[in-house]
Amino acid sequence: MIKAGIVGGTGYTGVELLRLLAAHPSVELAVITSRGEKGVKVSELFPNLRGRVDLAFVEPDGVVLKGCDVVFFATPNGTAMQSVPALLKAGVKIIDLAADFRLRQAEEWEQWYGIPHICPELLTEAVYGLPEVNREAIRSARLVANPGCYPTAVQLGFLPLLEAGVVDPQSLIADAKSGVSGAGRKAEIGFLLCEVGDNFKAYNVPAHRHLPEIRQGLTAVAGGSVELIFTPHLIPMIRGIHATLYATLTDSQVDLQALFEQRYAAEPFVDVLPPKSHPETRAVRGSNQCRLAVHRPQNGKTVVVLSVIDNLVKGAAGQAVQNMNLMFGLPEGTGLEGIALLP
Amino acid sequence: MIKAGIVGGTGYTGVELLRLLAAHPSVELAVITSRGEKGVKVSELFPNLRGRVDLAFVEPDGVVLKGCDVVFFATPNGTAMQSVPALLKAGVKIIDLAADFRLRQAEEWEQWYGIPHICPELLTEAVYGLPEVNREAIRSARLVANPGCYPTAVQLGFLPLLEAGVVDPQSLIADAKSGVSGAGRKAEIGFLLCEVGDNFKAYNVPAHRHLPEIRQGLTAVAGGSVELIFTPHLIPMIRGIHATLYATLTDSQVDLQALFEQRYAAEPFVDVLPPKSHPETRAVRGSNQCRLAVHRPQNGKTVVVLSVIDNLVKGAAGQAVQNMNLMFGLPEGTGLEGIALLP
Amino acid sequence: MIKAGIVGGTGYTGVELLRLLAAHPSVELAVITSRGEKGVKVSELFPNLRGRVDLAFVEPDGVVLKGCDVVFFATPNGTAMQSVPALLKAGVKIIDLAADFRLRQAEEWEQWYGIPHICPELLTEAVYGLPEVNREAIRSARLVANPGCYPTAVQLGFLPLLEAGVVDPQSLIADAKSGVSGAGRKAEIGFLLCEVGDNFKAYNVPAHRHLPEIRQGLTAVAGGSVELIFTPHLIPMIRGIHATLYATLTDSQVDLQALFEQRYAAEPFVDVLPPKSHPETRAVRGSNQCRLAVHRPQNGKTVVVLSVIDNLVKGAAGQAVQNMNLMFGLPEGTGLEGIALLP
Amino acid sequence: MIKAGIVGGTGYTGVELLRLLAAHPSVELAVITSRGEKGVKVSELFPNLRGRVDLAFVEPDGVVLKGCDVVFFATPNGTAMQSVPALLKAGVKIIDLAADFRLRQAEEWEQWYGIPHICPELLTEAVYGLPEVNREAIRSARLVANPGCYPTAVQLGFLPLLEAGVVDPQSLIADAKSGVSGAGRKAEIGFLLCEVGDNFKAYNVPAHRHLPEIRQGLTAVAGGSVELIFTPHLIPMIRGIHATLYATLTDSQVDLQALFEQRYAAEPFVDVLPPKSHPETRAVRGSNQCRLAVHRPQNGKTVVVLSVIDNLVKGAAGQAVQNMNLMFGLPEGTGLEGIALLP
Repeated sequence: MIKAGIVGGTGYTGVELLRLLAAHPSVELAVITSRGEKGVKVSELFPNLRGRVDLAFVEPDGVVLKGCDVVFFATPNGTAMQSVPALLKAGVKIIDLAADFRLRQAEEWEQWYGIPHICPELLTEAVYGLPEVNREAIRSARLVANPGCYPTAVQLGFLPLLEAGVVDPQSLIADAKSGVSGAGRKAEIGFLLCEVGDNFKAYNVPAHRHLPEIRQGLTAVAGGSVELIFTPHLIPMIRGIHATLYATLTDSQVDLQALFEQRYAAEPFVDVLPPKSHPETRAVRGSNQCRLAVHRPQNGKTVVVLSVIDNLVKGAAGQAVQNMNLMFGLPEGTGLEGIALLP
Repeated sequence: MIKAGIVGGTGYTGVELLRLLAAHPSVELAVITSRGEKGVKVSELFPNLRGRVDLAFVEPDGVVLKGCDVVFFATPNGTAMQSVPALLKAGVKIIDLAADFRLRQAEEWEQWYGIPHICPELLTEAVYGLPEVNREAIRSARLVANPGCYPTAVQLGFLPLLEAGVVDPQSLIADAKSGVSGAGRKAEIGFLLCEVGDNFKAYNVPAHRHLPEIRQGLTAVAGGSVELIFTPHLIPMIRGIHATLYATLTDSQVDLQALFEQRYAAEPFVDVLPPKSHPETRAVRGSNQCRLAVHRPQNGKTVVVLSVIDNLVKGAAGQAVQNMNLMFGLPEGTGLEGIALLP
Repeated sequence: MIKAGIVGGTGYTGVELLRLLAAHPSVELAVITSRGEKGVKVSELFPNLRGRVDLAFVEPDGVVLKGCDVVFFATPNGTAMQSVPALLKAGVKIIDLAADFRLRQAEEWEQWYGIPHICPELLTEAVYGLPEVNREAIRSARLVANPGCYPTAVQLGFLPLLEAGVVDPQSLIADAKSGVSGAGRKAEIGFLLCEVGDNFKAYNVPAHRHLPEIRQGLTAVAGGSVELIFTPHLIPMIRGIHATLYATLTDSQVDLQALFEQRYAAEPFVDVLPPKSHPETRAVRGSNQCRLAVHRPQNGKTVVVLSVIDNLVKGAAGQAVQNMNLMFGLPEGTGLEGIALLP
Repeated sequence: MIKAGIVGGTGYTGVELLRLLAAHPSVELAVITSRGEKGVKVSELFPNLRGRVDLAFVEPDGVVLKGCDVVFFATPNGTAMQSVPALLKAGVKIIDLAADFRLRQAEEWEQWYGIPHICPELLTEAVYGLPEVNREAIRSARLVANPGCYPTAVQLGFLPLLEAGVVDPQSLIADAKSGVSGAGRKAEIGFLLCEVGDNFKAYNVPAHRHLPEIRQGLTAVAGGSVELIFTPHLIPMIRGIHATLYATLTDSQVDLQALFEQRYAAEPFVDVLPPKSHPETRAVRGSNQCRLAVHRPQNGKTVVVLSVIDNLVKGAAGQAVQNMNLMFGLPEGTGLEGIALLP
């Protein structure tokens, strides 16, 4: 059994991680920390876990965490980097669900996150945990930077096009829509049901922190600079991301459907739908799948990719478990067999 | 492996049954029938099942169904009774998720459902599939009448009170609220998002078909006639039932919390919350749990019980699988370990 | 023109009051105060008011408020009582949308609200602003205590029964459901879309502050003590209250439909639906109507009343405007003609 | 008083038209027709209209309609063209809320709508009822083709850019999202709450009937051909459209904010928000406003316009009333002063 610890498990990625790990056949949940909720039983905060998770939150404690085989950080940005160096030294493997190790350049990280990075030397060691791109590196990684939710949906949609070089990398547009759980479990007026319910809007159009993360990933596969417009929106629902992606084709002969099907033929968690399909967020609700469809409207110069994930699963906790499975040599889908809840 | 057939799997209880059975370790999904959708792949209708259920709908066919060990009917009321006698004769076990075998009196059934019953002789043989009441009878049953969604939530809430004789059985009120999936997957204006979304209302206050079913169950445990007011309401959400139950105490000394905890101490799928709790429908979303809380406001003469289930799971497909497990001697919770999806 | 001031207009009753007063033909919006948002334009906080309300929030200022003809308090409980005596002395009429003047007994108020009352001598002068009961007293009042949202829906439903003496006043049950805007515009985790969306639950079953308010009102019309169970629930939507009311009939011959129709025949904002109806919250969304239906299931001993209002209009701001109209001799419905928004 | 008739008022544009016309000071609602609901009171179908609209639906009848000053068609596509020629001959003014007269080329219309056009000679006479473009022509029109909901939101967003010639007209992308009421009030499984609730998806990506309508309008203002990708999506809510528009700038010096503000300075129903704003659909819920914001992310080559309307008001019934006001010489905003309902 893998002894797993969770740092900061009081948010939505935390409870989702608990749901997945509690049912994982090779994991023993050893410890979960939270300064704010110490002493509170996990199942009091998250009543769906009653009878399934008996732990109570404890204060973060280096000794206990060092006894784990793997520690997941489900903390606000800037927290994991404070503890990761010591834990790595103690031989613990790390999966950070926040952004601390996602960007390879410390200066870029500091510019977007507004604080100095404590351990910039780990930025190049950290493996970006998108298995569809970095599977082999993840298997041997000590430190995995779990991708953001938008970056997962957007990169999986653009990958086949950029790898094949059939679109202009300067023409990328990602019009992305997310359920509200992406904003986390924070006491802010802006995310009250009465503010975001029965409502739709874009936000952070001038700049969103997922932009450099997506750009970095796409640049790597494109083998050169990309230009990307990224427009996030809030959907009045809890879970799900729908990314609508646009790019200008440079090869008008390419068989887009075949390109996508071949690229993802061996991927357990990427599902390319038949031609003319429209993936729905509910078709991945609670599951680790990404479902994709590719269109070329009016047979014109623009390719349109539709990509859906559950932001809390493939966009966060599920992908973290997928990475853990790879890091510990388990079958990649262990504990991730849950079928999406529909309706 | 148990060979399972599903008759009429195009509705919401159908897709939920498919979700549960596809992941059940002892079940082989042998056949699923639908006249309207014959030839269509199940995963086309329900994209959450892509990669998990390969069956296509076929026309109902007695021969194929007779080759099953168990057949689930997820059909409109009045359909199952047409095929059940022949299937029973062929040695097939039956679990009917509709209402055909829920009432023991043919005349009462015919009065509420408006058509003659085809096989009234089976009404007394049929076992009402509420394991918390009829576990032993279910184990040996050939024909199980799976309870309705409201009746499950309401009976589990009233049971301890009536069994203990601590309330006036003439004083029962069930103010029940259901997500819209309880209405099924039917093309009716009344259930469009634009009609029931962002809206709340009662319906069928003069009379609802679940009233005689609940009354029959409560009468049995009360050991005498009960009087019940049953008021159903529609919640603008998909899954979940919340029953708020009222009764007048006849024993003002009873320890209500202890009564409930003891009654359900051994039940795997009934969870009594601590005093002063308020169960939420999301805490059972997608799971087979019923969660209960019992209150006595102002320490007065009225007991208030709060009871939540997922109407498609403990209120339909999950309870059906629980019954199947009992009928085939499997551990009762097999395939029902899914943790509720929260948020 | 009536010069109107609003104290504390940053919540949902505040913005609704602004919406109504901005369109009121006899009102000039003179001032709106908020400590937290001083200097901010009202239309920045509430973009629906762009082009319609040009005011900015200012610090509460006795001098400016004393120049008003009427001041509305849309403040947290315990705030209005600090300024009301001075404003009354200055000749300003007051409508308090909070609870400071709703209970007539200072001790009871202090017990439920947990702080000493500053001006208990005003509790008996204050007129409870339910026009359907106190219309004449409101016309000549200096200080109106605007009723709570639940109390409005519940009292209007029980009134005809208690006034006519046809039910047992010891048998009252109010199972009430509210949209989330009733909780106000506060940064609390409990009211995030991800917590209350796609979810249904009861809350405050042991005790809710609206209980004594309802009991006081019902006692007055019953002419004797009443016993009431009040169970509030949260609906996953923004606006609307649905109260489902139960009482035991003492007169089994009464024509309930006629009783309700006659009681409210002259009321501009109470609409009794035809027999067998089920009022919907959307049918009053944004309007000042209360719509009612009365049922007697199975022709039994229990009467069931269904009562819907928009909690922000008839349950708060609309009723406040109705009271203002009465206090200033205007036609009662001035500025309240808006038709409910459906769908 | 203008005598107004409505043909086909049982859908969502119908009830919204009734809500607006019932409160319009210069309109007398003379007749409303529906074959399916003849004899039914309007307020039975739409309970928000109880006490405000006393009409019952009648069968369509040429004589009665010919006695009207204006007839609104809120019918399915292909219906209005059957009656319009005779009504025009009788001197009745027509506002068609469906698509029968929106395209100027009969062949294009027939290609997209799949049936022959009955009166193609009227296509060039009909005035496209977007007041921000065609105000003067509308004033003198006999026949107004009321724009579609998406076309209104998209055209108002692109207009200033194309009129000023500052973007490449071959580069247009409209990523549009609509509440479900845009699909109408039809008994179809696809629009049940359980299908579209708690879900997000694109639809009709290969081709949507609003594409030629938008392209025709944009071509006219661009003074040359435009290339447009139009991707509609369904939001799990009732009302509101959010169009996110992309175009490649050809003039990198243009002051986009000033361009938009100047273009719409005199428009009563188009509101340009301050720089860096994100309009929300709820800020126009129930009102006739279009609210716009313009962005240039990372100061790059792509302009992003955010445009919101209420699809049933500025996108349908409200714009129809605006057009009627123009056609009858009334102040343009008469009866359209309603402030958006927020929250």
